[in-house]
Order: sequence, then C-alpha cells, then structure tokens
Amino acid sequence: MRPVAIRNIPRVEASVVAELGAAGVATVHEAQGRTGLAKPYLRPAWPGGAAAGSAVTVLARPGDNWMIHVAVELCRPGDMLVVGLSSDNYDGMFGELLATSLMARGVRGLVIDAGCRDVASLREMGFPVWCRTVSAQGTVKASLGAVNIPVVVAGVLVNPGDVVIADDDGVVFVPRAGAADVAKKCAERLAKEEAVRKRLKSGELGLDIYGMREALAAQGLVYVNEASELERPAAALKEGQ
Amino acid sequence: MRPVAIRNIPRVEASVVAELGAAGVATVHEAQGRTGLAKPYLRPAWPGGAAAGSAVTVLARPGDNWMIHVAVELCRPGDMLVVGLSSDNYDGMFGELLATSLMARGVRGLVIDAGCRDVASLREMGFPVWCRTVSAQGTVKASLGAVNIPVVVAGVLVNPGDVVIADDDGVVFVPRAGAADVAKKCAERLAKEEAVRKRLKSGELGLDIYGMREALAAQGLVYVNEASELERPAAALKEGQ
Amino acid sequence: MRPVAIRNIPRVEASVVAELGAAGVATVHEAQGRTGLAKPYLRPAWPGGAAAGSAVTVLARPGDNWMIHVAVELCRPGDMLVVGLSSDNYDGMFGELLATSLMARGVRGLVIDAGCRDVASLREMGFPVWCRTVSAQGTVKASLGAVNIPVVVAGVLVNPGDVVIADDDGVVFVPRAGAADVAKKCAERLAKEEAVRKRLKSGELGLDIYGMREALAAQGLVYVNEASELERPAAALKEGQ
Amino acid sequence: MRPVAIRNIPRVEASVVAELGAAGVATVHEAQGRTGLAKPYLRPAWPGGAAAGSAVTVLARPGDNWMIHVAVELCRPGDMLVVGLSSDNYDGMFGELLATSLMARGVRGLVIDAGCRDVASLREMGFPVWCRTVSAQGTVKASLGAVNIPVVVAGVLVNPGDVVIADDDGVVFVPRAGAADVAKKCAERLAKEEAVRKRLKSGELGLDIYGMREALAAQGLVYVNEASELERPAAALKEGQ
Amino acid sequence: MRPVAIRNIPRVEASVVAELGAAGVATVHEAQGRTGLAKPYLRPAWPGGAAAGSAVTVLARPGDNWMIHVAVELCRPGDMLVVGLSSDNYDGMFGELLATSLMARGVRGLVIDAGCRDVASLREMGFPVWCRTVSAQGTVKASLGAVNIPVVVAGVLVNPGDVVIADDDGVVFVPRAGAADVAKKCAERLAKEEAVRKRLKSGELGLDIYGMREALAAQGLVYVNEASELERPAAALKEGQ
Amino acid sequence: MRPVAIRNIPRVEASVVAELGAAGVATVHEAQGRTGLAKPYLRPAWPGGAAAGSAVTVLARPGDNWMIHVAVELCRPGDMLVVGLSSDNYDGMFGELLATSLMARGVRGLVIDAGCRDVASLREMGFPVWCRTVSAQGTVKASLGAVNIPVVVAGVLVNPGDVVIADDDGVVFVPRAGAADVAKKCAERLAKEEAVRKRLKSGELGLDIYGMREALAAQGLVYVNEASELERPAAALKEGQ
Repeated sequence: MRPVAIRNIPRVEASVVAELGAAGVATVHEAQGRTGLAKPYLRPAWPGGAAAGSAVTVLARPGDNWMIHVAVELCRPGDMLVVGLSSDNYDGMFGELLATSLMARGVRGLVIDAGCRDVASLREMGFPVWCRTVSAQGTVKASLGAVNIPVVVAGVLVNPGDVVIADDDGVVFVPRAGAADVAKKCAERLAKEEAVRKRLKSGELGLDIYGMREALAAQGLVYVNEASELERPAAALKEGQ
Repeated sequence: MRPVAIRNIPRVEASVVAELGAAGVATVHEAQGRTGLAKPYLRPAWPGGAAAGSAVTVLARPGDNWMIHVAVELCRPGDMLVVGLSSDNYDGMFGELLATSLMARGVRGLVIDAGCRDVASLREMGFPVWCRTVSAQGTVKASLGAVNIPVVVAGVLVNPGDVVIADDDGVVFVPRAGAADVAKKCAERLAKEEAVRKRLKSGELGLDIYGMREALAAQGLVYVNEASELERPAAALKEGQ
Repeated sequence: MRPVAIRNIPRVEASVVAELGAAGVATVHEAQGRTGLAKPYLRPAWPGGAAAGSAVTVLARPGDNWMIHVAVELCRPGDMLVVGLSSDNYDGMFGELLATSLMARGVRGLVIDAGCRDVASLREMGFPVWCRTVSAQGTVKASLGAVNIPVVVAGVLVNPGDVVIADDDGVVFVPRAGAADVAKKCAERLAKEEAVRKRLKSGELGLDIYGMREALAAQGLVYVNEASELERPAAALKEGQ
Repeated sequence: MRPVAIRNIPRVEASVVAELGAAGVATVHEAQGRTGLAKPYLRPAWPGGAAAGSAVTVLARPGDNWMIHVAVELCRPGDMLVVGLSSDNYDGMFGELLATSLMARGVRGLVIDAGCRDVASLREMGFPVWCRTVSAQGTVKASLGAVNIPVVVAGVLVNPGDVVIADDDGVVFVPRAGAADVAKKCAERLAKEEAVRKRLKSGELGLDIYGMREALAAQGLVYVNEASELERPAAALKEGQ
Repeated sequence: MRPVAIRNIPRVEASVVAELGAAGVATVHEAQGRTGLAKPYLRPAWPGGAAAGSAVTVLARPGDNWMIHVAVELCRPGDMLVVGLSSDNYDGMFGELLATSLMARGVRGLVIDAGCRDVASLREMGFPVWCRTVSAQGTVKASLGAVNIPVVVAGVLVNPGDVVIADDDGVVFVPRAGAADVAKKCAERLAKEEAVRKRLKSGELGLDIYGMREALAAQGLVYVNEASELERPAAALKEGQ
Repeated sequence: MRPVAIRNIPRVEASVVAELGAAGVATVHEAQGRTGLAKPYLRPAWPGGAAAGSAVTVLARPGDNWMIHVAVELCRPGDMLVVGLSSDNYDGMFGELLATSLMARGVRGLVIDAGCRDVASLREMGFPVWCRTVSAQGTVKASLGAVNIPVVVAGVLVNPGDVVIADDDGVVFVPRAGAADVAKKCAERLAKEEAVRKRLKSGELGLDIYGMREALAAQGLVYVNEASELERPAAALKEGQ
C-alpha cells in the first residue's frame, strides 16, 4: 500500500444522497439487489442516529489513528468518514475531539471498522458513529496508511465518493455510479411497500398478496390439521431436500 | 425433515400465560428448576419490551424466510412466533412488514434464532423481537422448512404451544404440560423474594437470611482481618479444591 | 487458591476517587499511560450509568455466586464490587436482590466478568452494573472462592482497594498507590483538551494544532490532488513499511 | 430438572450402528433429511478418530463433572457418552483417567458440549473425543445434574439410546426409532454417489449429471464470454432476487 | 447483483504463479506491501497443504452451493476456486464429490468463505481447502449468485484471475496486474532473509543486524539492570505515549 | 507504562522447571490449586510440542513486534518468551526468523497473546509456539512497550521468572516463589493418579474409588431403572437446585 492522501474525490449529487438517506439502510440494500451491506457487527455507538453522505475513505493500521487526522482536512460538508483497518482491531480510534473537528467541517457521521470512545459525549453532541465496539483504548500516531483509496470495510469494498447510508439497522454502501438509479428504485419500492403495508394491516396475508401458495405446494409443502396425522407412513409426505 | 405445516396446536390457558409473563424471565427460569432458558445471545432488538404467549414454531433455512410467511396464517391472538434455523444464520429474516402482519393477527412478539431488521420501526410500532443480531441482510423465499414441529431455539427444545416469556433478561420457554404448576411456583417465589427484599433493604445480610455462614465454614472458608496475616505458613489454611 | 476472605483493605481518599470518577474512563486511561483498561467486552447492563469507587474484589467459580454473598458484608459506602471468575462464565450471577443488599450498604456499582440479570429492575433502581452479558441463568452456591485477593478481571490485574471508574465507555482500574497522581494528570489533561476543543470547534485542524504535518512528510506521506495521478510509475512514491 | 439417573435405556441393534458408523457423518446427515447435525463448534480433540455408538446422555453443570462419574457406571460396551451442559462452559471436564474408565467398560468415545484435557494421552490411548475446546481447567464435583434424560447438545436434541456418529466432519445424532431406515438410505446414497464419483472423475460435469442447466436458465442465469460484455445496458440481464 | 457467469478471464503467466507459490503466503504478503491477506479465520481444512493458482471467483448465497457447480465448468488447469458469500455462512458447501470434479479439471485447491466437509477424504485425495469451518451441514441448490465477478473474500477484494497463494499460514491474494513485480520482490526478499537467517543462527542479534538500538533510545527506551531500580522517582524515566 | 527493559530477572532452579515440565499442564494446574491456567484460546501453533522454562516477559502494542526484538537479547538458555499485548491483536507478530534467533540463544519456546506465522517452518525447526491464532499479517516496529515487567497474558498475571509450562493442553504459569512446592505436589499427584489409573483400568468405578455414592445420595440423586418410572408424581423426587 502506498502512503498517499488524495485530495479530491468525485461525489454524488446532494439530492440523491438525501433520497437514499430517507429510504434507510434496509430499503437501499434491497433496492440495489441485496448488495453493499456491511457485516452486522458494525453497530451504532448510540441508538437512534441516522446519517447519509459521501464516503471519504481511510485505511488505518491497528491501534493507530494518525490517518484519521489526515482525513479530517479532506472532508467537506455532507461527507461521511469511512475507516477501514489493515488488520482487525478494536481499539478506541475515535472520540469526542475528533468528532468536534468533523462537525466543524460539516461531516455527518463516522463508520469505523474498529472501536470508538466517548460515546456519552457523542450522543450528547448528536454525532452518529457506527463501529465494531466501544472501547476507551488509546491509540498511537506512528504508522502511515492512506486516505481516499478503495478500502474493504466490514466485508464491503468502498470507493471514495460512494454513498454511505447508516441507521439503527447498520450500514450500507452504494457505488457512486449507480446511486441515482438506486434512489429511483428505492422510491418505487417504498411506494409498493406502502400498498402492501395497508393490506397487511387490514389482515390480508402475505401468502395471498405475494401469491406464494402455489409455489409452496409445488415444492411439496404439506398442510395437516393436527400433529397426530403425521403418524401416518412417511411415504405419504414428500421428503425435504 | 418433512416440509409440513400443522394448523392446530394445543395452547395453555390465557390466565396462566399472563401469570408467567408477569413473573418475568428470571423468576420463571428459577421456578421451573433452572431450565428452559435460551442462550443469552438472544437479545431484544430494542430495550424495554416484554411479552408472553403461546409458541407457534417455525423451522427455517439460512437466509430464507419463506416459512415465516406460512406461519403467519397459523397464528392466533396471544401467540408468540418462535423461529429456529436449520443451521446458524444472522440475516435479517424479519422486518416491519411481517411485524405489521403479525400485529394484525394479535401476535405479541417474535423470538428468532437469526437476525431481524427495521428495528427503529419495530420500536415505534411497539412490536418486540428477540433475535441474534440486527441485520438488514435480505433473504430469499426458495426452500421449505416446517411450521409447528418441535424446534431447538438457542439451545432449548421448544414444542408448539409451549409458553414463551421474554423481556430484557432474554427468553425462557415453559413446556405446556407444566405451565400451570410453574406459574404457581412463580407466585410463591415472588412472595418469598418480597420478604427477603425488605430485609436486605434494611441492611440485613444474605449470609444471615439464607443461613450460609455454617456451610461456608464447613467448606473451609477462612476470614482474616488483614492481607498481611496470609504470610503465615500455608498449612494454616485449608486448600481449595 | 486459598478460600479466604480478607476483612480490611486500604482505600483511596474519597476526594481522589471523586476526581477520577468525574474525569471518566477514557481520560483516566490516558492519564495513567494507557494502562488499566478492562477489555471492551465488559459493557454496561443499562446505558447512561457511571460510577467510581474502591474495589472490593471477589474470585468466584463458574456458575457459582456464593462468594458474592460473602463479599457484601465486607463492603463499605463508596465501594465498587469487582468480581473475577476462575474460568470463563456467562451465567447471571448477580441480580436485583443482591443489588438491593449492596445499595443498602452504600456500594456504588458492580463490575463482573460474567453475566447479570434483572436488568430492567437494576435500571429502575439506578444500580449500575458492567458485565460480560445479560443472562437470567441461575447459579449455585456450592464452591468457595475468595474475597479481597488480587484478581484478573477482563484482562487487568485488580488489587483490593484499587480505584474503579466505569461509564458508557467501559471500565478502568487505577492502582491505589498512584491514584492521586493520576487524578492530577487527569485535571491537566482535561484543561489541555478544553483548549484544543475550542480550536477544533472553530475549524482549526488537529494536523496543525498537534503539529503533525512534518512527521507525516518525514515518514513519506504523499499528497496528490486526484487518484489519476497515481497512475505514474510506482517509484515516484515511497513505499509503506 | 430432577437429579435423576436412569439405569436402563433402549439401544439400537449393533449392526445398524455399525452401518451408520461406516457411512460417516456427512452421509448420515444427508440420509436423514439434513437433520441431527451438531453445530460445527464440536471438533475432534485429536484428528483422525471416528466412532459410532448408542448415546448415554448426561446433563452437567458448568465447571462440574460429577455426573460424568455417575454416568460411567451406566455405560455398556458399544456406547458413546454424550454430555450436555446446563449453561455454556469451556472447562476441561474430561481427561485421561475418565477415558481409562470408559475404555475399561467398552465405551467407544465421548461427545461433550464443553472442554476436555489430556489430549496427548487421549490420542495415544486412541480414545476419541469431540468437544468445544481443549482446556486443562479443573472442575468441581459439587452439584447434581442427570443421566439418561433428553439433552440438547450443540443445538440438537439427543435422547438416550439415539445413535451417535462422529468423525473428522463433526457429530451427527440419529433418533433411535428411525435408525434402521436411515442406515438403509445411507447405503442407497453411497451406491449412488459411487456412480457419480466415477463420472466426475472422468471429467463429466455435475451440471450435466444432475441436469441443472435448465433450472439455472429458468432462474435467469446469464452466461457471457467476457466481463466487458456486461457494459451493455443493465436491462439486458434479469436482476437477481 | 446480476446472476451472471463469465466464461473467460485473464490469467497470470504460469511461471509467475509458480514463483509466488514457492515464496509462500507470509513472504508474498510482505512483498506486496502487507496487503491482500485474507483474515486469519480462513484455515486449512487439513494441515500441510499448499497451493497457488489463478482465481476463478464465485459469489454464493448462504447455505446454497449451486454456483459452485456452475463454476466448475469454467475452471482450467492451474486455477484455484475462490468462493465468497453474500452473507456470513458456515455450512458445508463443498465436499469430496466436488473436489473429485475439480481435480479432474486440474484445479489446485479451494478457498471458501464458508464451511467444507469430507475433510478426511480431502486429505487422502490431497485436495487442499482453506475454509471458515469444517461442517457437514448440507446445502440447497435454489438461488443464483455469480461466477467470475469481483468478490470480497475474508476481507479482501478478489478479481477473477488474481493469483491465490495458500499454505499453513493462510491465504493471500495478488492482483493480476502487479503479480510479476511482486514475484520479483519475493525473490529479493527471500535472498535478503537467507543472509539474515545465517547471522541470527550464529547468535547475532536482530537489534544489531537491523540497527534498531538508536531508534529505540530515541523513542525513550530505558534499560535497567534490576527491577528494583524502578523504585526511583518516575520522573527519571520518560513516559510512554 | 514506562518503556523499560529490565536485564536481570530471578529464575527458578533448572531441576524444578524440569519436574514441572514433565508433569505437564493439567497436572501442574491442579497441583497449584487450579490457578495459573491461560485461557484456552492460547493453542499450539503445531500439535505435539511441549516446553517448560523461565518467563522472559514482553508487553507489546497491537500490530507492533519491536519489543520482541528487544527481548531476544535478554533471554538465556532455558527461558520461554512470554508476550502480552496492550490491547487485543491477532497479527503475525512472530515468525521463523525470530525463532531462529531465539533457538540460537537456547530459548525453549514462545507464548504469545497474539498471532504467529511461518508455522510450517516452526514445526520443521521444532520450535514450539502457543498463540491466539495463525496469521501472516505483518507488523510494524514503531512503538515502545516493555520487557520483564509483570504482564497479564490470556487472563493470567505473569511475573518475569515465573515458570511457564506448555503442551497440547495449553499453557500454565507457576509463580516463582511457590514453584518448588508445586513440583513436589505434582509428584504426589502423579503417584496417586497412577494408583487410581490401575484400578480404573481393571474396571473399578470412580464412584467407588473416590467414595462418591454417599455424597450423591445426600444431595438427592435418585436412581430409577427405567424412564417410565418418572411418570410417578413429581413429589416423589427431590427437586434440583
């Protein structure tokens, strides 16, 4: 890895970011074909926060938060800072002072594949963080990484400028090129879901709304009224795979 | 495993379920001889919820929530949906739309040995879920499982119609046959605890209330005033096991 | 291990404990040279609590909370109970009745390298607990351990009388001998941080405040304006370690 | 749970046990409809062992191996000892002396949902053990459990007398009632696999042997010769679920 | 994700692959600037194997090995099959029959971010597998993924045609474009290490060979002869970071 | 933590170390009252090795093996190197070159609370390592730690000069002061076990050899011949705790 910091990155139009943020993590993940979701070990440091923005990416070394300081300068209003690690680490690489600095620059939140600290302060400040663990473990500033190169974060490849959406369900990344298209699909999906929601609320069944009964029967699902009917010879029921 | 859905299951009387729910997880677990507790990795998707009901059981395959749709139809008011997996999985098999459907049928909550999503919505709706993780990961509807057969959930065998009690302490299952008896023991236990609580509050010691001093001495517990007294020859103190 | 309970332990002056508690876990950990932090798997049983006090230590066996009952008697107002295990265990070794007893004696909180239960009650009572997991699993009272001997808790050696500071960031232990000195360093650190915080809030960069630019350049950090500039021959950039 | 030891249990005919053992874990698991497999955290304490026998079941408490001693007496030649825990534990509940005792009684191996020790000796003696971890941690003999009651072991319900098959792939349990039928299905499966193996060895493809091409196309799998062809408009490819 | 299978991929020259394989995982990882290493949870299914080849990549769904069957046809002699998952899964997605098929096509080994089974047979056949766990858990053939698209495997982005090197130390991936250059650096590194090895064997110290003493002193490392010397005032020693 | 390296440490007599090594991990752990055992996550990097020696201790930072280089110089023949980490880390901090250097100095093995690499070479060289994981992940040489100060390793406090015993069962540490006494107890224990082993081999039961039957009955263990007898009223059996 080259120790490099790239100053300028392409970003997605603010209105698209806003639409994706409004749709939320689960909807965006579905709308882009069930891809881009960070592993679920990334959790909010405090519950109830939500944010969306353009990824400024960092590759940091375990127990060393030096490159986060480098990245701060390269963030713009509307960005999200996204930190990947060169190997697994759980130390408290980020806290209230760095959050203060990021807020001063208009950054909307942090996604870090490591630990963070000062969570009570972060909650008070309203600065949302998604991290691997909460840990007060201090870190050094000794080894270089990189800023704004592609990084793998919680199992997902993130390129600088990709859209980050994060809420209580976790974190999803949307590649920059397809972001507008995904936003459109989110809108369609939300509209469709609203219709389904009303029907479900009224007591209609998903089995009927989605028309699943036929496929279930075709695969061999058998209904019986009572468990006791299963005492009949096994041959009467099709075996599962 | 046969791909079967059993329509009718025996259920415990509503008043017994209510008593067990009021007693809470820890008391029920103790009252039935310290059995039936789900492994502690099942946690509330949002804090502060509590529910009790009759188990409608599901066996699902990893990354596939088809059988949950099948199960919804077989639920009745007062039920809890209980989902076991054929192998470990953390995907978001359950979300707000399924919760809407279950609430419309009077279901009180969900226990799932996998992930769930839309947690912010679930909290707003007041639909409680106990799960392995929060994950927005989408699932397919491709392979059959079963509904209302016995399943092992978080280390516990659950039969359809068993009573499920869940709160911030986790989840406990009570076999249907013994539920009334366990409810009675809960009441006794709660009464006894209330008496102990008052004594403890007044400063009395558990050592004296439970009469433990003699047994401790018999096993060889030695009291010394200062750590420095331990410099005496080891032979003066009985060794641990 | 000798099954022993030591009645009297040295304690740190109340004002020093108060100063350390006010500084919080992250600051104390830094002020004592980044030592003494419990592994981050120790988490608050309910969020928002904070406590500091003198450690009364317990060594308990897995699934057995007998020695906690012994320890209660030896606690004084201002103490924190600190429970280590002879081997890994996640059972619910502590609950609302023991908390009632400890509160009656003026104990400020519990740190336990195992599970706890009755978390809803603990939150209502305002008794803070830091633990490995929430579990209702009941425990026996069958085997001896020890009270007020040195124990390793979540990776840290704790001596009786050491200061325990715990909040939403986790738990840190301060050796008794150096506590006053650490408290002084906390005050200095907090003052310095307050100055830095103001500058960061105004938009100044950590890179400049901490004077990092020179060291980064010396180590070989390269800035480029655009990713496309990296297409140049690799030799133009110094390799990372 | 009642502290009970049941002396006599039904067992499966030795020839059926032998057939299941010869088929091995993966084949048995498939032959009984992909059920009965212990979670993969149960691993051989030393590689290369394999065993099959009738389950004598134990429910033990964490850190307490007393009930294993009780169970030894109730074992007969051809049995496997199967130990479940009342809550998660990793201590070394079993070692070379207990193995000596079991071998003297003709027991073929041990499956334990906890730790074991003396692994070098166990390997020399040729006594196979499947366990959660290797740990020398000593245990007490203080609290009762039960012998020959149904237990959940590594996620599977095991009844006394069920057949246990274990090898380098893990552990599978076969309910007593269906054992002969499963053995027959294993034989069929092995015969069928032998035929497939020959064809695969000769270079024939599973796609053709199993006739998968049509189903893949029906679900929408698209073949392209080069990645560059994917630059065409997305609409040309059917979206995944 | 589009359900696509790409037939042709670029591959690295065989001699380069051979050089990288001979250098081994640790050396390759270092030679390419400490990048490309799979997370250490990928372990050999049996010890002592080693392999290197060109990556044919698969994206599979949890509990579903259908796409592996699709991929077999697209493999050529000298390839390694590399399977990523759309979400975490530990099932036994690969076994002896698929290995037979791959060996018939000249494939050198498998890297799979999930489970594998039939490990005793794989060892006998000499087909090396690196996986997350050993599990006999059967899988379905129901949902599409993709073949020869970029996938993230154990935290590393792998493109079709990248070089895979795997041995007892784990798995490392080398991007195709830089493979020849990395092979050259490996040779240099191995030569240099051989010289160092001789000096170390003769008793010379790394401190002197690498010239570390000055830097250690500059950072503030203090040598004392006896622990008792540390009783001197702390000010005499420079504090750590 | 002060960045200090202490040159001279007290060591235990070689004959005592040899006796402890011959007794093995499980016996030593029992002989010293079931204390001093490292958590079982420390496993041999290759199976079948065993070693005992005097601990030269290192405190290292995550992803940084600089202090190991410092420690090599301070090792003497018969020592074991013992490395603790300032926070959790799994990187490959140790490999074949460092092993070459240690062997040249007569060091018998390594215990490291982190990862190691070059395991195939280590096995060939016969240099035994107990570690947390195998990982080729490279590390930096940037931050100071300490040598020969007390460290917590895998949950155990280790002082320089303590005796380290390690084999396939894991790692146990014996405080220097009590080492001779523990060695004596090991000899007694081994003699006693040899007698018990003979009796067990001949078919005698542990229940009788250890005289457990009375205590089991006193605690309420009930024997029944058949499971069907349990259908009798529950009152006939004493309830478990």
